[in-house]
Amino acid sequence: MKKLVYSFEMGDKSWRDLLGGKGANLAEMTKIGLPVPQGFTVSTEACKEYYEKNQWLSENVKSQIAVHMMKLEESMGKKFGGDENPLLVSVRSGAAVSMPGMMDTVLNLGLNDTSVEALARESQNEKFAWDSYRRFIQMFSDVVMDIPKYKFDIVLERLMEEKGCDSVEGLEAEDFKKAVEEFKGIYVKETGNDFLTDPFDQLLATVEAVFKSWNNPRAIVYRDINGIDGSIGTAVNIQSMVFGNLGQTSGTGVAFTRNPATGEKKIFGEYLLDAQGEDVVAGIRTPKEIEGMADEMPEVYKEFMDVCALLEKHYNDMQDIEFTIEKGKLYLLQTRNGKRTAQAAIKVAVDMVEEGLISKDEAILRVDPSSINQLLHKNFDPKELKKERPLTEGLPASPGAASGRVAFTANDIKQGKGEILVRLETSPEDIEGMNLAEGILTIHGGMTSHAAVVARGMGKCCISGCSSIELDEAAKRMVIGDVVIQEGDCISLDGGTGKVYKGEIPKREGMIDSTFEKFMEWTGEYKSLGIRTNADTVKDCETAIRFGAEGIGLCRTEHMFFDENKIWPVREMIVSKTSYEREQALAKLLPLQKEDFVGIFKTMGARPVTVRLLDPPLHEFLPHEDDDIEKLSKDMNIEFRDLKNRIEGLKEFNPMLGHRGCRLAVTYPEIYEMQAKAIMLAAIENKRNGVDVSPEIMIPLVGEVNELTYVKKRVQGAIEEVFRTEDFKLEYKLGTMIEVPRACVTSDEIAKEAEFFSFGTNDLTQITFGYSRDDSPKFIGEYKSKEILAHDPFESIDERGVGRLMKMSVDLAKAEKGNIKLGICGEHGGDPKSIEFCHGLGLDYVSCSPYRVPIARVAAAQAEIKSKRG
Amino acid sequence: MKKLVYSFEMGDKSWRDLLGGKGANLAEMTKIGLPVPQGFTVSTEACKEYYEKNQWLSENVKSQIAVHMMKLEESMGKKFGGDENPLLVSVRSGAAVSMPGMMDTVLNLGLNDTSVEALARESQNEKFAWDSYRRFIQMFSDVVMDIPKYKFDIVLERLMEEKGCDSVEGLEAEDFKKAVEEFKGIYVKETGNDFLTDPFDQLLATVEAVFKSWNNPRAIVYRDINGIDGSIGTAVNIQSMVFGNLGQTSGTGVAFTRNPATGEKKIFGEYLLDAQGEDVVAGIRTPKEIEGMADEMPEVYKEFMDVCALLEKHYNDMQDIEFTIEKGKLYLLQTRNGKRTAQAAIKVAVDMVEEGLISKDEAILRVDPSSINQLLHKNFDPKELKKERPLTEGLPASPGAASGRVAFTANDIKQGKGEILVRLETSPEDIEGMNLAEGILTIHGGMTSHAAVVARGMGKCCISGCSSIELDEAAKRMVIGDVVIQEGDCISLDGGTGKVYKGEIPKREGMIDSTFEKFMEWTGEYKSLGIRTNADTVKDCETAIRFGAEGIGLCRTEHMFFDENKIWPVREMIVSKTSYEREQALAKLLPLQKEDFVGIFKTMGARPVTVRLLDPPLHEFLPHEDDDIEKLSKDMNIEFRDLKNRIEGLKEFNPMLGHRGCRLAVTYPEIYEMQAKAIMLAAIENKRNGVDVSPEIMIPLVGEVNELTYVKKRVQGAIEEVFRTEDFKLEYKLGTMIEVPRACVTSDEIAKEAEFFSFGTNDLTQITFGYSRDDSPKFIGEYKSKEILAHDPFESIDERGVGRLMKMSVDLAKAEKGNIKLGICGEHGGDPKSIEFCHGLGLDYVSCSPYRVPIARVAAAQAEIKSKRG
Repeated sequence: MKKLVYSFEMGDKSWRDLLGGKGANLAEMTKIGLPVPQGFTVSTEACKEYYEKNQWLSENVKSQIAVHMMKLEESMGKKFGGDENPLLVSVRSGAAVSMPGMMDTVLNLGLNDTSVEALARESQNEKFAWDSYRRFIQMFSDVVMDIPKYKFDIVLERLMEEKGCDSVEGLEAEDFKKAVEEFKGIYVKETGNDFLTDPFDQLLATVEAVFKSWNNPRAIVYRDINGIDGSIGTAVNIQSMVFGNLGQTSGTGVAFTRNPATGEKKIFGEYLLDAQGEDVVAGIRTPKEIEGMADEMPEVYKEFMDVCALLEKHYNDMQDIEFTIEKGKLYLLQTRNGKRTAQAAIKVAVDMVEEGLISKDEAILRVDPSSINQLLHKNFDPKELKKERPLTEGLPASPGAASGRVAFTANDIKQGKGEILVRLETSPEDIEGMNLAEGILTIHGGMTSHAAVVARGMGKCCISGCSSIELDEAAKRMVIGDVVIQEGDCISLDGGTGKVYKGEIPKREGMIDSTFEKFMEWTGEYKSLGIRTNADTVKDCETAIRFGAEGIGLCRTEHMFFDENKIWPVREMIVSKTSYEREQALAKLLPLQKEDFVGIFKTMGARPVTVRLLDPPLHEFLPHEDDDIEKLSKDMNIEFRDLKNRIEGLKEFNPMLGHRGCRLAVTYPEIYEMQAKAIMLAAIENKRNGVDVSPEIMIPLVGEVNELTYVKKRVQGAIEEVFRTEDFKLEYKLGTMIEVPRACVTSDEIAKEAEFFSFGTNDLTQITFGYSRDDSPKFIGEYKSKEILAHDPFESIDERGVGRLMKMSVDLAKAEKGNIKLGICGEHGGDPKSIEFCHGLGLDYVSCSPYRVPIARVAAAQAEIKSKRG
Repeated sequence: MKKLVYSFEMGDKSWRDLLGGKGANLAEMTKIGLPVPQGFTVSTEACKEYYEKNQWLSENVKSQIAVHMMKLEESMGKKFGGDENPLLVSVRSGAAVSMPGMMDTVLNLGLNDTSVEALARESQNEKFAWDSYRRFIQMFSDVVMDIPKYKFDIVLERLMEEKGCDSVEGLEAEDFKKAVEEFKGIYVKETGNDFLTDPFDQLLATVEAVFKSWNNPRAIVYRDINGIDGSIGTAVNIQSMVFGNLGQTSGTGVAFTRNPATGEKKIFGEYLLDAQGEDVVAGIRTPKEIEGMADEMPEVYKEFMDVCALLEKHYNDMQDIEFTIEKGKLYLLQTRNGKRTAQAAIKVAVDMVEEGLISKDEAILRVDPSSINQLLHKNFDPKELKKERPLTEGLPASPGAASGRVAFTANDIKQGKGEILVRLETSPEDIEGMNLAEGILTIHGGMTSHAAVVARGMGKCCISGCSSIELDEAAKRMVIGDVVIQEGDCISLDGGTGKVYKGEIPKREGMIDSTFEKFMEWTGEYKSLGIRTNADTVKDCETAIRFGAEGIGLCRTEHMFFDENKIWPVREMIVSKTSYEREQALAKLLPLQKEDFVGIFKTMGARPVTVRLLDPPLHEFLPHEDDDIEKLSKDMNIEFRDLKNRIEGLKEFNPMLGHRGCRLAVTYPEIYEMQAKAIMLAAIENKRNGVDVSPEIMIPLVGEVNELTYVKKRVQGAIEEVFRTEDFKLEYKLGTMIEVPRACVTSDEIAKEAEFFSFGTNDLTQITFGYSRDDSPKFIGEYKSKEILAHDPFESIDERGVGRLMKMSVDLAKAEKGNIKLGICGEHGGDPKSIEFCHGLGLDYVSCSPYRVPIARVAAAQAEIKSKRG
């Protein structure tokens, strides 16, 4: 028979998979001699067995639990639910990874009409005994039988009213007896059965409830989000009760060995005298700060401080400790690595290195890269946020916090007034307004929609795909459920969670300090992946360099074209009927485009700057309003109707798969020639001014090597011409995006013609899956909830599909050209999990939006450290 | 020094690659003792060298040509361009594969002011000599120097007018002398140089012109279309002249050993007395039928008949022979396998098997599968067609010929009136009108556009992507250049070439006869690939079975939904807000859908029928006109505005990559459940009536195995329910389309859940390349002309890209499940080149539209025969 139950004397902290985190730590604390109430753990394998047997507790596990209960009775000298000296236990879930949404705790299990009397006698405290009993019934009914808690609270409130007291402590033994009777009545009514009196039945029902809660919806969602395997199961810890509610020499509390909000090296905790654990959490009584214990129970306080120091040292990390004091004696109920803010994580990690407790590489592994976002952006004050209820929730497209008045068109955004721009979806025409807005909220679009990408680039708070909002653009209002928001009404966006609130919420600044700087510096000592940035403006470049970017991996040229200055010649170029007309328009653009690059090269200096030539379909640049078409038709001397027809003719059924990227350059090579000239003229100007430059020209959307060969020839020709006319040469690289599945499959051929590859994983993901980024939010939610996709492939690289294609591409390319430079410039370049994958693929660099550079640095360092550790 | 020039005495027909087709056959005929004028061949390797040396004739090749000229002079006893007994030569190009667009022939080379006199003396025919000279100047100027021919014709016409004769034969020696003088003047004016008098200079210039013509645009396009490697080069044949224009005992002609139009076993040819080769082709004089020679020159006729019989037997194929008779002596100038119509190809192949000349497998290889189209559809009478000039040209989307009055909307098509439907692009709403139309012409869309796919399915003539037409739908007219076509005007479409004509052109029927049937039967003895059809209606099924289809590889269910009967419940289903409403609508659809399948199963009997469940995005079914929306809003009891918003909300940015295929079924599993039930109910009904059935259910657009697992479970559940309620079970298969790149890459996982894969290469090509089938015609033309793509990947499978993904999929799937059934149901399933590729991949079957089934059968048999031959 398989062993499924383990006493705390067996095992240690390394048995996490088998005993769960809580069980392993209870075993560990028992092993090192700390005062832990005795007990045992029903292992995760019992949970797996439970599910394998179609949600049925086997006789084997039942009898092992029975045996361990007997041993526990024996060593405690008590009898489980007995009529004298009764043994009571707590039952708590404990998976290998801590997880919200699961059933938590049942205390005082073992009480019934008999044992409560014994407990009263034993403790000489009838009130305590009956209080414990009513607590048990309430807790068991709530967490095991799913009876709403408020039904019991109503009874207590009535009893308090009758008694004329305003807290439960004011009630007497008699009152609790009454409560117990009434509680049993509620139980019968709700379940159709009498309350379980047999302690062993109580125990098995609770163990089963824990197992069931492993698969409750919240737990499933949490596992999906965090990529936790659903088959590992949870353990259950059964521990003899100790009581913090046996009068003023008893108490209970929780403490962190350091401050979990700031990381300050000082015990941070709260406790309550004469209370059980739930009272601290429930918020009915206000707990005291842990320092108060120094006066109230100096010896226990000292002992607890020593335990804290010991546990932190033992676990080499900040601990989160639960304890109970029963009649002056300290018991430890749990210890675990404490959750902390990003600020605290970095502070604790850096301090512990300086205290000699951990190594630098260990410190780097201690910080969750994604959490760093909190430090870079304004955030809502957590205390204030707690008071608010969100109106609705979208995708957390770009972090930060924003409050402001709603505007429904980009034109309605006024400089500096801090509006929130709300749109069905943004388009390149909205850029100006987006730049001025405080925050952006879109109804459509996913994590890589236009709004999301642009907002992240700007470091601006954005929520996308908030499909529960009904937007009536004409009437300038939006409706969320029964709340109507008019233009000018105030809303708040939490870009970190995707939640939308009504009204304004106070904010606090991001927290970049010297500790942060030091930590970031350390990441540089470990990481091997280069970290570049996706930046289109001088401002982006400056931000990214401040955060440690080592170059530009993607400089999109199309955003530059939306300037009022440039859009008209761009439009002229597009609707030109002849090459001559087109060249006239391009000649107007050349000096404007050159100026864009002059600033960028100057800012980046010797760092490599990868410029992607024009990518989007041309109709994105064309006017759609009749007024603008009229203006263009006059400028170009074209009949209005003719021009309108031509604009219609450029529309596409599937623009994502249409005439864009290098396909434009095959049809109109003059465009890329102009851009190549502008890049080189800007580079030469800087070089003449003593600024070192490293331009890299990148051709987008190549799917067939002949496209690259053709376009490259034209681009090289244009550059040679600049070198001749300027009488100046400089080094540059010419490469391609890999963003079409066919490019991956034919990378051997493409590598012959390219000096570098940059994986455009946004498009590669779209095309490999056949998911339009603008349309897929309609079904990706359902895909996640039905467990068809474990995660959104636009957030983290889909390793099994897109990743296999990337691997194939890397292998084919390296076999052809060993020294080819490989990078990634999709949004995945800022996602820690994807960065680890790219590190494994052997890429040379990742590129991400400026505000993700620090995240990428940490993730890259972690990937390197993990792979070295093997 | 590399040998680059070969005399006809060396080599034979197997030296094709080195000597070109013409040269190899001249060598062969020389070898078997036939009367071939002596000469030599400048090999294809000389051409390659010419291009390697950057278009420069090396001293080596020049001196080898000189040596061979000297030998030729010696053996002929004549002097090249000499002042007595002058040697004249013809120069003709000859690549390994015959190819239009290349420089063809220069005759009488070696003439100059001296040798013409000698020729006059020698032949005692001054007129002949000067006529030959003026011909030479004219031909040399035209084909070598690119001087327009009409400039010379004007001179001849003036001379004839002066002389008062109406043909060139009326001119005398003196007139030709004048012509020569004037021709030289034109030459000087056009080239800036004197006419070349040195015969050797003339020769080298002509050889170089042949080499240059290898890379002229027409030749390049031809090679691209036919997949001929551009690096193989052409050879040049230099042959001593014989003269058919030395009076009434001389002549020239061409003959086929069998009738090239019908295949009839009877020599078919034409000749002219006192003429040079060009006269037969030029059409100035009307040639006589070859039988006339029996009277005019009985001995030569008999000799020629013997030669024809010998050559056909020697080459084992119908020969196309050029000959000249000089003063009663027969000379052979060329023999080659004769081009023939599909009808002739099949007749000749079948006859030759029955004559014991070739084997059946050889006969099958002799027929170009694509040409079979000609036999299955009405065609324009070639003689009539010759007289017409096309207005414009689009893509030959579906073969056949159609004439009729133009209608610009599907609603304007009246039953049986034979209109031509002209649209920007068709949509599923147009199906009814398309079915009634005589032919279909679209401005947008490629070879796999909606119009193309549907028309091929219907066996109806269609031209797509005819982008030179400006369509003004509002005004109901279209403009092609300066021709305006109004509604009701008559046009003609040639679906085989994509050409559009004005007015009506007489047609002739397709030609399916017993020879065709016999040939098709033979293919069945050889092919290993199964041939299925893509069929959605009973009519399609009947056509396909008649052509030899062995099952249905793709039965699309969406076309069924566009019936007036079905579209309304479909719409109700789509706009349903609740599952309950949706199930109500589906309940209405179930019996209607079942009826569709009852007929199909009955027609197909025991043959497998693969039904693809609903695939297109739902908004394709929704009304877009306010009237229809109004009607639906009343039926559904929904506010008009609310419904209109909901319809708007279903629109997608990139519908190709949107909410369609199995993604619909993940969101609304009820739809597939209804379809699965309908299929099984129909199958059971047939089975109960004694009809054997083999249903196969196919899930579209799977990209992730979990999609298939989820949908499969629901579909199987629905089927089990039918089996229970009907108390009847039957065998069925459940599989998936492979049409998303990610499905190829994860085929190992998907194979676990699928009994068969069917490659949907239309979508797979679209998505792998990232080319929308509706938008790519805008640039694919340019891609072909710029040699970026050798062929349209929607016509033939892109083996290097899409093919690699298919290979990966097949390998992964077979490794997981050795007996998995693999097929293809994209349009490529009817393309011979793609069929050969699928055969190589090891697929079990191909599926194509009914009218392509015979083509597929031949291609499949050829693939098998070729692979067996190795």
